[in-house]
Amino acid sequence: MVTWNNLDTLASYKELQAVEQVNLAEAMSGENGAERVKKYSVPMAEGLAYNYGAKQVDDNILNVLAKLAEEAQLTEKYEALYNGEMINTGEKRLVLHQLTRGQLGEPVVADGVDKRAFYVEQQTKIAEFANKVHAGEITNAAGEKFTTVVQIGIGGSDLGPRAIYIALENWAKVNDTLKMKAEFISNVDPDDASGVLSKIDVAHSIFVLVSKSGTTLETLTNESFVKDALEKAGLDPSKHMIAVTSETSPLAKSDDYLAAFFMDDYIGGRYSSSSAVGGAVLSLAFGPEVFAQFLAGAAAEDELAKEKDLLKNPAMLDALIGVYERNVLGYPDTAVLPYSQALSRFPAHLQQLDMESNGKSVNRFGEPVNYPTGPVIFGEPGTNGQHSFYQLLHQGTDIVPLQFVGFKNNQMEQDVVIQGSTSQQKLCANVAAQIVAFACGKDDENRNKKFEGGRPSSIIIGEKLTPEALGALLSHFENKVMFQGFVWNLNSFDQEGVQLGKVLAKRVLAHETDGALKVYSDLLNI
Amino acid sequence: MVTWNNLDTLASYKELQAVEQVNLAEAMSGENGAERVKKYSVPMAEGLAYNYGAKQVDDNILNVLAKLAEEAQLTEKYEALYNGEMINTGEKRLVLHQLTRGQLGEPVVADGVDKRAFYVEQQTKIAEFANKVHAGEITNAAGEKFTTVVQIGIGGSDLGPRAIYIALENWAKVNDTLKMKAEFISNVDPDDASGVLSKIDVAHSIFVLVSKSGTTLETLTNESFVKDALEKAGLDPSKHMIAVTSETSPLAKSDDYLAAFFMDDYIGGRYSSSSAVGGAVLSLAFGPEVFAQFLAGAAAEDELAKEKDLLKNPAMLDALIGVYERNVLGYPDTAVLPYSQALSRFPAHLQQLDMESNGKSVNRFGEPVNYPTGPVIFGEPGTNGQHSFYQLLHQGTDIVPLQFVGFKNNQMEQDVVIQGSTSQQKLCANVAAQIVAFACGKDDENRNKKFEGGRPSSIIIGEKLTPEALGALLSHFENKVMFQGFVWNLNSFDQEGVQLGKVLAKRVLAHETDGALKVYSDLLNI
Repeated sequence: MVTWNNLDTLASYKELQAVEQVNLAEAMSGENGAERVKKYSVPMAEGLAYNYGAKQVDDNILNVLAKLAEEAQLTEKYEALYNGEMINTGEKRLVLHQLTRGQLGEPVVADGVDKRAFYVEQQTKIAEFANKVHAGEITNAAGEKFTTVVQIGIGGSDLGPRAIYIALENWAKVNDTLKMKAEFISNVDPDDASGVLSKIDVAHSIFVLVSKSGTTLETLTNESFVKDALEKAGLDPSKHMIAVTSETSPLAKSDDYLAAFFMDDYIGGRYSSSSAVGGAVLSLAFGPEVFAQFLAGAAAEDELAKEKDLLKNPAMLDALIGVYERNVLGYPDTAVLPYSQALSRFPAHLQQLDMESNGKSVNRFGEPVNYPTGPVIFGEPGTNGQHSFYQLLHQGTDIVPLQFVGFKNNQMEQDVVIQGSTSQQKLCANVAAQIVAFACGKDDENRNKKFEGGRPSSIIIGEKLTPEALGALLSHFENKVMFQGFVWNLNSFDQEGVQLGKVLAKRVLAHETDGALKVYSDLLNI
Repeated sequence: MVTWNNLDTLASYKELQAVEQVNLAEAMSGENGAERVKKYSVPMAEGLAYNYGAKQVDDNILNVLAKLAEEAQLTEKYEALYNGEMINTGEKRLVLHQLTRGQLGEPVVADGVDKRAFYVEQQTKIAEFANKVHAGEITNAAGEKFTTVVQIGIGGSDLGPRAIYIALENWAKVNDTLKMKAEFISNVDPDDASGVLSKIDVAHSIFVLVSKSGTTLETLTNESFVKDALEKAGLDPSKHMIAVTSETSPLAKSDDYLAAFFMDDYIGGRYSSSSAVGGAVLSLAFGPEVFAQFLAGAAAEDELAKEKDLLKNPAMLDALIGVYERNVLGYPDTAVLPYSQALSRFPAHLQQLDMESNGKSVNRFGEPVNYPTGPVIFGEPGTNGQHSFYQLLHQGTDIVPLQFVGFKNNQMEQDVVIQGSTSQQKLCANVAAQIVAFACGKDDENRNKKFEGGRPSSIIIGEKLTPEALGALLSHFENKVMFQGFVWNLNSFDQEGVQLGKVLAKRVLAHETDGALKVYSDLLNI
């Protein structure tokens, strides 16, 4: 039986505040630094490893973090979650996204259905559908093959699938599994849909409409926009569209779609990449086998998150070091910096995952908490970021903890040797150099050229960004965010903070405004 | 004669700390709120307006900010800058990016040359070159027209031009001025170049190599990468490549390029979009006339920044309100949220512009400062962000000041009416609603559904995102960052914080490492 307590009521948290802090620049210098980097590493699934040598922790702090993990019952809460307890208390829902990629515990039966079987069934149906599209058994009205798949969705129905598509597009090209090109329409800005439609061949495109409720304003608007375009092109929209939605949604049993695939209320939008929300577009783009590899990587990483020993559980460790940085060291932000152009939109996905889950001020019982919760998350791929915002990270007045990701090998086959090294080696040399520059700094008589150091970072290192590795990476961050939510005693699975804006926007459109809202509406010509 | 002083030595700053703070939720409610929104607005160039009704200021605070502007001699320092004083003292350079789009003051002669004439000459040469390419007078070896332009550059040679290209691509499509498609290669990750090369027709592509020094590692590496690909395709690289560089760079007089266009040391990378760095790729993509319209918008906005009356100078006002938020209210981040899909990469450009300029801990004399300087900048377009990280912005434990941008009209011609409103109306209704939701909040018995409000924002409102409006927008933020640097007494025009990483990366590639750096290098297989 788990109990839910605020972080500031835990004895181990008080201990954590009192334990001596690490001088990172000192700790990371010389052979001591080398030993730290060798020792402070924990294997992840699919050949990845989480290295926290350059984090502002030591054995004493890790020891207290382990006590905190135990006192906050983190693995027990995870177990409760995957065994089907109602963890999303605000919306009175189970939290089952891990079940879309594996059976972690006991069978979970809800609404009279074995949920694992349900998710597998949906993936199987998607796989069959995708295979038929690729084989030319499902075609457009003229009997021609579809070449492009366009996802229409926003938030969790967009950022995760889009980041994953971009991450694997080049990998799929060289591995000959790029079956269809994917595009994404998300914004209610009409130029988003127009822009995408202007560059695709609509007659050979299949559109995936993704909305759990079937009521998302942006998505339904863009659906109409696309249907309009299809009709103007003399095409029958119902032959070009599939739906991913919940079984109870108005989209579920409509003749407007070639097919419908299902998710349910137990999969939050930002956690839905491994459900049908990601499954449909990614199986169409890369083939169902690639999507299955991605799921296998996520499932393997989910298994590791069960480990009770903090030093063997990378997601829990990452989570607790993050809590230490946020609540004891007082750092308000975290930057995610993948040294991989393929991961260019992965930070944007993590931004939603993290900030929408834990950007909250009340605990799971609706009581205000007296400590900082989720940080601001931002990031861009390296080495690009080095030539952009790293100036502030190195020499700014605030310290920003950093989360690097790097791979020993690139995805595509091309590389060149220039000045004695390949581009991939240059890329890796840069991330290694940055970690040490941030941690150790460098003295200089000219204060403008001095680096204080003491800026903590971790790095996840992998062999190559494959579908399996990407799945493991996604699971790592999902579980990190989940564990942090447990520590902060939040409900990480609702998002009441997005409601007020929706209500007011409806009021503007109905011209039922007064005060400041009316003036803004007038200024914007609505 | 201007004098340079730290912010915390100024009498008006002490006064600012003492002045009564605004309860924003209260101030923005009812008719008082409506009055604020009407009153707190200042016209910008090209029909834009900066509205700060929802910022946490009132007449008293604005009055002290005006004193601060005067005491810190902000407009005098701007005047010194555009009249050619050596403002970038660290690198001993003038700061002349405004001169690339207009003559703001006296002629500036440096290195024996009238610099305005020099920049105009370069734009003229670029225009002639672009016109010849478009007319088919400059072609590939087979005499065929070039259809694609690929910028090879990183940081300031990438983010600004890329953001501007994306911002105007759809506008150019409907206005029939999209002459060539543009692509961008930046990252040293070999998959970046491979990915771009795999999707373009290299035989009909012209590559713009952009490096001021001619020594940027990533850019030279990617140049070799591209040359390799051209040669493998049986093409002569020198017939497919132009250079944008300084006259003293090794690239300036090389036979490797069809043509070379020049910038100089007085244009910082992140301020170079209006120089040849942006000029070449954008003139090729959209035609020189469109680039000239963009410059005209920037020049008009630059003129407004001369205004000594704070309430009539949008860039200075935006800057000072930002300083108030950072140094008095203590907010560490700022989010940039354009309600325009075309501006999807504009926040990434502003992230560099701001964080690389003012992410510093020492003043312009190399002495440590005792107050926070540049904030972390991040953002994504709305409405997408609403379905992502807005949860934290509304209900998180930290307050993040917000910078909205919105336009009354969309760029492309398509729109649809659904449920009584167009997509563009829905987009605008959402930004209006968000501003009020953030400022006013909403009470609720269920604390989880309660919004505290008090979250400050401004909005720049325009008619339509045209080249002129985009130029004005860019100038606004460049000048905002410049004024903030003046207030914080920083040199906003150097970037010493990027050096250490470069030095260490070279050491890694030369295998001259020890300690932690050696272990990381081993872990990454370098």
